[in-house]
Amino acid sequence: MKGTFITVEGPDGAGKTTQLQLMAEGLKRQGYQVVMTREPGGTRIGNEIRSLILNPDFTEMDEMTEILLYAASRAQHVNELIRPSLTAGTVVLCDRFVDASIAYQGYGLGYSIEQIRNVNQQATGGLTPDRTYLFDLTVMDSKRRMIERGALDRIEQRDDAFRERVYHGFLSLAASEPERIRLIDANQSIEAVQSLLLEDVLAYLKKRERLS
Amino acid sequence: MKGTFITVEGPDGAGKTTQLQLMAEGLKRQGYQVVMTREPGGTRIGNEIRSLILNPDFTEMDEMTEILLYAASRAQHVNELIRPSLTAGTVVLCDRFVDASIAYQGYGLGYSIEQIRNVNQQATGGLTPDRTYLFDLTVMDSKRRMIERGALDRIEQRDDAFRERVYHGFLSLAASEPERIRLIDANQSIEAVQSLLLEDVLAYLKKRERLS
Repeated sequence: MKGTFITVEGPDGAGKTTQLQLMAEGLKRQGYQVVMTREPGGTRIGNEIRSLILNPDFTEMDEMTEILLYAASRAQHVNELIRPSLTAGTVVLCDRFVDASIAYQGYGLGYSIEQIRNVNQQATGGLTPDRTYLFDLTVMDSKRRMIERGALDRIEQRDDAFRERVYHGFLSLAASEPERIRLIDANQSIEAVQSLLLEDVLAYLKKRERLS
Repeated sequence: MKGTFITVEGPDGAGKTTQLQLMAEGLKRQGYQVVMTREPGGTRIGNEIRSLILNPDFTEMDEMTEILLYAASRAQHVNELIRPSLTAGTVVLCDRFVDASIAYQGYGLGYSIEQIRNVNQQATGGLTPDRTYLFDLTVMDSKRRMIERGALDRIEQRDDAFRERVYHGFLSLAASEPERIRLIDANQSIEAVQSLLLEDVLAYLKKRERLS
């Protein structure tokens, strides 16, 4: 595939969405074709699934149902949007992907990492991001920022112990794949994170162009 | 588990729902506690997923999305309704279960049977029906009955070649598990099928009671 698949990951409130927006603008200024998207969601059917997953009213939702709904949304996203965009040579910027499922559903809910990987292997057909930026923010800081934002969805309402396991999961993933996953200190200013990210992503894209 | 898990399977229009209703009434008259349910659906969250799967407007739905949505609905169904009902000693009558996914998504859409079994193993935690009645109806008869019924959902709109593969899949399943899956000739009168089913299911329940 000619395009490049870049994801951002990390706790809620870390500034991922803002930074992805700024990265998209920066890349477009440099002449890149960019698609910016997110999970769960990213497609019409994905957004229907998203509203099911996040609805705070569905307190009875089984954890395995949640895992399979995330995977269903992801299958639609990969096959309808991400893979065709990559084939067309686009830079795809995606807010959360399989790493989030491993952190939240594997480490967070306590399902085996292998089980989560298997379901997602089926959903994505094995598609893996070329580069992932993991926004590093402690549980305390994440919580403070979310409270400032207001109403919490069903997943955001989980407790601190859950958040700690998710955070630990993200750091374990980063440690196991240092080439793909880059850690970003999310306690810097928006501008500082932005310039750091844009510099890194541009260098990465140039390197891929030279190699191809 | 003290209860008994009975499913009905087969092509659309074979009379499964009517017969399940009659079986539920017959078992209640004999003093059994009965829960009658269906897939996809069976729970509040499952019904939300059902309306997503069957919506004829979602023509862009990816096949893997469909497979994972059926599995998500099934996980909710098993964990919220079926397993607790079985634990409470109830006879659970369910309109379609994993066999339908193997026939429609494995044989029909052409995914590997092992892949469909794996996803469903995760969804159900390995729960298998104690007895399954497979309503045998040719593709031609199934189609005629569906047209008489009126508007078709997204799955029912698939072509005859798909229906033939599904039918073949059901027959293969029945041949591979003759102890669990009983073939029912759906071309008999409603009354004939009803008395045949009720007789068999009562004999089966009595046998289980003697053995337990």
